[in-house]
Amino acid sequence: MMGRSWISFTTDYGLEDGFVAACHGVIARLAPDARVIDVTHLVPPGDITRGAHVLAQTVPSLPRGVHLAVVDPGVGTARRPIAIEAADGGFLVGPDNGLLIPAAEALGGVRSAVHLRSAPDVSRTFHGRDVFAPVAARLAEGADFASLGSATTDLVRLAPPLARTLPDGVTAEVLTVDRFGNVQLAVVASAVQLPLSGVTVDGRPAVAGGTFGDAAPGELVVFADSAGYLAVAVNGGSAAALLDARAGDQVTVRFP
Amino acid sequence: MMGRSWISFTTDYGLEDGFVAACHGVIARLAPDARVIDVTHLVPPGDITRGAHVLAQTVPSLPRGVHLAVVDPGVGTARRPIAIEAADGGFLVGPDNGLLIPAAEALGGVRSAVHLRSAPDVSRTFHGRDVFAPVAARLAEGADFASLGSATTDLVRLAPPLARTLPDGVTAEVLTVDRFGNVQLAVVASAVQLPLSGVTVDGRPAVAGGTFGDAAPGELVVFADSAGYLAVAVNGGSAAALLDARAGDQVTVRFP
Amino acid sequence: MMGRSWISFTTDYGLEDGFVAACHGVIARLAPDARVIDVTHLVPPGDITRGAHVLAQTVPSLPRGVHLAVVDPGVGTARRPIAIEAADGGFLVGPDNGLLIPAAEALGGVRSAVHLRSAPDVSRTFHGRDVFAPVAARLAEGADFASLGSATTDLVRLAPPLARTLPDGVTAEVLTVDRFGNVQLAVVASAVQLPLSGVTVDGRPAVAGGTFGDAAPGELVVFADSAGYLAVAVNGGSAAALLDARAGDQVTVRFP
Repeated sequence: MMGRSWISFTTDYGLEDGFVAACHGVIARLAPDARVIDVTHLVPPGDITRGAHVLAQTVPSLPRGVHLAVVDPGVGTARRPIAIEAADGGFLVGPDNGLLIPAAEALGGVRSAVHLRSAPDVSRTFHGRDVFAPVAARLAEGADFASLGSATTDLVRLAPPLARTLPDGVTAEVLTVDRFGNVQLAVVASAVQLPLSGVTVDGRPAVAGGTFGDAAPGELVVFADSAGYLAVAVNGGSAAALLDARAGDQVTVRFP
Repeated sequence: MMGRSWISFTTDYGLEDGFVAACHGVIARLAPDARVIDVTHLVPPGDITRGAHVLAQTVPSLPRGVHLAVVDPGVGTARRPIAIEAADGGFLVGPDNGLLIPAAEALGGVRSAVHLRSAPDVSRTFHGRDVFAPVAARLAEGADFASLGSATTDLVRLAPPLARTLPDGVTAEVLTVDRFGNVQLAVVASAVQLPLSGVTVDGRPAVAGGTFGDAAPGELVVFADSAGYLAVAVNGGSAAALLDARAGDQVTVRFP
Repeated sequence: MMGRSWISFTTDYGLEDGFVAACHGVIARLAPDARVIDVTHLVPPGDITRGAHVLAQTVPSLPRGVHLAVVDPGVGTARRPIAIEAADGGFLVGPDNGLLIPAAEALGGVRSAVHLRSAPDVSRTFHGRDVFAPVAARLAEGADFASLGSATTDLVRLAPPLARTLPDGVTAEVLTVDRFGNVQLAVVASAVQLPLSGVTVDGRPAVAGGTFGDAAPGELVVFADSAGYLAVAVNGGSAAALLDARAGDQVTVRFP
């Protein structure tokens, strides 16, 4: 990775404290030419699953580089700090709690992984600043991946989200709810062929469409979202509110 | 536009999802030397008017460049994707729903506009990533403006905000309410000559001043704000709360 | 400061208006090669103390450069605009209301300070854009510090936070509460030697530990935080909620 290098940065640190900036500062000192793209820092505190989904759905749009992600309720305990080399040639750095795996898969899969060697004298509560950002910066500067720690393969993985085929539809877990209240289901949209009419979502009539405006105002629309998942929206409203659906809940789409 | 080029970026995407980062990523891949200034991504969902005002009031402070703005409740429908060349030599890219016009006017007016040619195979719900960010990046890289689509002149415009002169004052629509609760009215401040005393705002006594501290704590002050509009503040408090005023409401300032 | 220069940026401007971007724009025009690290813009409106603590605890991680900070309830009044040269060779720019001093001390102390010369014709309500950002940009471009105004030494300082030693513990003011609900006390952690058991916080049993996971889920833990202060957390919960503690409140830790 010569010349310009890119680091993406995803956390649950929030934006009201100085935690994100401290990590930016560490990167600026160690890799002054690297450029950082903030994915989000508003992952709900400790919500590894949410962090994993947001990062995985964003990395396909990011330049190849280093993806630093820290949602780390186990900071300072025995959970391992890791780095992953993805099949696309990029890297992921963060805690070994499942957070990085979906993004690695979106980048073609895990090529190799290391258990990061601990530096002496790091804080036990801010590994983003003291462990992960320095490693991300060194990778952006061209550090040898294998030298960062000891090779490992038994990475922690999140339980796969539920998705169950029914005779006349599908019941699936909500992967994410976005700012607009759009409800994304754990179903690859291309695997489902929706009829133009007769669709229901949790028993409510819906239309199958391509975008929000394919439904009448206030009406439910089922569509393939921009990440390729089956999703439910309300034209001009919030499907999450209408369906009372949150990430992890189950939603049933029927199309008899 | 050789060398360093600047892109400003305004949306209603929020900061908790990866939408903003996906657009940053697209820009990074297509125009790696461009630098992006985020104006705000907290425009209330679908609030075109708010997005238009925030951008228009910020562009005078931004470097000349490309202004990418996406508040787009009609994404995927027949509303057109457009780009505008402004009189200052900069560009604006986004949906043809009125969002870009006030900023174009703040940059000296619309010199020319194009209806962007559709790329095949774009998502129908994320034109920020798939249509607008790529065009902004290409403009930052020096792409020929006219080649981006077909010339157009009949751009959609927002209704002008209400502002009515009274014998002893003015009734005007609230353009924006900022984080501090300052209420900005659709009145160019230099057009009004306020007396030092006897001013009222919706019937409440106020002072005419230059800054918040010209009023006693808790007192209303009418002043020319940093964008040149007539505005109402409370020293150490929120004028929006005191007046119960939101964007689009009408406020009457009297100075007999 | 030749070549790459860094500016950190801390305000209470919020992220929903264009104020932060306007300052970024001013910097981009005057110092196009400078890079800006946003510390936070979510300091509660006018909360100088909070802004001072966040900046002071973040600067040790930032690259040497210019630290622009604006939490300025007295904007436009007689309070002075200042710049400080810190002992580490970096600079701080902002209002003379105490905001900059803790950060200057974290950088080794105040080497010199100037009362910034007023430019004619600046707004009276947006000194971030019109006074402070331009000075920060000029310093990043290598401007002579002393030429920016008249030397001054009588800078406004915040009252020091309360911290009182007890026979069996300490009562101290809460410096900050972070996003995770961790409660940071105005006590340098290395000054206190906690026993492994028998610790109480406001009368509730707690453990002394190194990280959150050293306590059982839901249990209080007292630890040295990443800024070196004594802090209280709940494993998997919010100490601030459990203790009903906010910045400025007093908390008592006893270890008989």
